[in-house]
Amino acid sequence: MKKSILRSRIIQIFEKHKLSKKHSKVCADYLIKAELVEARSHGLTRLKMYCERIQKKLINPKPKIKIKRISSSISYIDADNSIGFISADIGIYQAIKNAKNTGLGLVAVKKSGHFGLSSFYAEQAVKKNLIVFCFTNAPPALAPYGARKSLFGTNPICFGAPVGKVPFILDTSTSMINRGKIRHANKFGKKIPYGVALNKFGKITTNAKEALKGTQLPIAGFKGSGLAWMVDILSGVLTGSSHGGKTKDPFDDFSGPQNVGHLFITIDPKIFIGKRYIQEMKKNIRLIKRLPKAKGFSSILYPGERKNKLYKKNLNRDISIPKKILQEMDELNAI
Amino acid sequence: MKKSILRSRIIQIFEKHKLSKKHSKVCADYLIKAELVEARSHGLTRLKMYCERIQKKLINPKPKIKIKRISSSISYIDADNSIGFISADIGIYQAIKNAKNTGLGLVAVKKSGHFGLSSFYAEQAVKKNLIVFCFTNAPPALAPYGARKSLFGTNPICFGAPVGKVPFILDTSTSMINRGKIRHANKFGKKIPYGVALNKFGKITTNAKEALKGTQLPIAGFKGSGLAWMVDILSGVLTGSSHGGKTKDPFDDFSGPQNVGHLFITIDPKIFIGKRYIQEMKKNIRLIKRLPKAKGFSSILYPGERKNKLYKKNLNRDISIPKKILQEMDELNAI
Repeated sequence: MKKSILRSRIIQIFEKHKLSKKHSKVCADYLIKAELVEARSHGLTRLKMYCERIQKKLINPKPKIKIKRISSSISYIDADNSIGFISADIGIYQAIKNAKNTGLGLVAVKKSGHFGLSSFYAEQAVKKNLIVFCFTNAPPALAPYGARKSLFGTNPICFGAPVGKVPFILDTSTSMINRGKIRHANKFGKKIPYGVALNKFGKITTNAKEALKGTQLPIAGFKGSGLAWMVDILSGVLTGSSHGGKTKDPFDDFSGPQNVGHLFITIDPKIFIGKRYIQEMKKNIRLIKRLPKAKGFSSILYPGERKNKLYKKNLNRDISIPKKILQEMDELNAI
Repeated sequence: MKKSILRSRIIQIFEKHKLSKKHSKVCADYLIKAELVEARSHGLTRLKMYCERIQKKLINPKPKIKIKRISSSISYIDADNSIGFISADIGIYQAIKNAKNTGLGLVAVKKSGHFGLSSFYAEQAVKKNLIVFCFTNAPPALAPYGARKSLFGTNPICFGAPVGKVPFILDTSTSMINRGKIRHANKFGKKIPYGVALNKFGKITTNAKEALKGTQLPIAGFKGSGLAWMVDILSGVLTGSSHGGKTKDPFDDFSGPQNVGHLFITIDPKIFIGKRYIQEMKKNIRLIKRLPKAKGFSSILYPGERKNKLYKKNLNRDISIPKKILQEMDELNAI
């Protein structure tokens, strides 16, 4: 489908679900961006879920978002159960503003929801020449080290830094693979890789449905479990949002709003060494790219480069949409 | 050896190496602390190395440390090639002060050296009721994903949060195991675990000497490599310190000072939800500890608990010191 047509259709669907024109546009752009970077698990496959949660009054289509100024560096946002895209969009905008003013920004968002990829927000800060951390929590998917039941989300660690050209953006879940990929595999009847998830009896499984009922494995055992716990504290406990396994699964828990929390930290990289920052950063990338390559590698990519290549490749192409999702879109548009 | 006697002897050794009494005490306490938490690879085994670098004028025993105030939240410290313990000690003190004043602190340290365990500094901030990140870089040990040569250090990610009792402190290298453990195995002729390092031909090795000449493996491939890169940017590039594989190995590179960088971020967790923070944090820990246990586990520990137990266990015991190190201490004391 042509991107412009797809965009209009998504906007129309969100407007039918009572989102303002402005918010509908923001959400459409983030969903399309996920498709362009081929993170399909965070794209159109979630449109039906967002709309269902609006219909069930678990996402507030007309949120009254309050931004509380704590200092010129620190802000606290009550997202009033808005769709995650909108609150995170406002959150990162504020975090950028704070760091531009003072060199350092910290923004907490509470009462939010799933916001797509963390890298969407990191990228905005990096394009304004800032270093950035984005943290968000997610529904239970990972067992803490020593437990046999899921509690942490796949809790990504997202970090961005300006490089002078393609942003350096690391966006890594603390699980072996992200949950969206398992959901996507489940939706389309595909297998998942070996060694990334256990079934509910604690056995390794490659069946996506069984994995969703079981638990995902963290990276590096105790280390990955600890990193997921860190993200739970930063985005859940600190922001006054859900934590400790209480974040609701947006796909199958309709007992209340998700109450996801986000935390953004922004740093002006020029505060310590001025313009030398960008020179040193370029040198850093150059030194690493020049290393002798491992077998099977023709180049060394920094985090963010691969997604950027996909984005550029897909930017002027039509977006191919599976029949199942086209059908969902027709149904959502018909209400 | 009795702890008080050991302490006096270390202080004496550092004073003979021209450190001030005050600095000698600080360094002795950090070295003993490493022994107490059984992180032997960061304890007395390094004493000789520190002294050698002082003798070779690569560590400055009488540093003129400058603290530049950038804002009430942000400070920049030039450590003048001091021993890492001293500059990091001053760095975390300043970061605590800044967060106590403004809710948020950011302190960069340049021209520093190896500072022991990151958790030593995180703990100080947590005991002052702050959330904290400590980042530091290290000499080449890990190959970036796609390369066959070491460049990143084992670059730990250290995060701390107040819990109301034993501090939550995650201190995790981005390598499968920390380099100090491999050095320790090498010093005492022990084997290292399978699958944590490659020899210089790119083959897995359990020989510590071969591993030191080869490269260590990051946790979770591209993810761990990206996290190590993040730490290199934060503690190296941003602070104006060495980066991109230029951090000198303290044990065998005497061509100049290490120029290690540290970055401390401190957050007052009460800024968003006030006293509720500590209640929610306790709830978080309680929820997780109550989960059904995996096979072989009788309890779920949060990061920091294990080290704290070791510390308490060893606090009133004598410290056992290998003959080899006793001999080194005698030699260092005889200069």
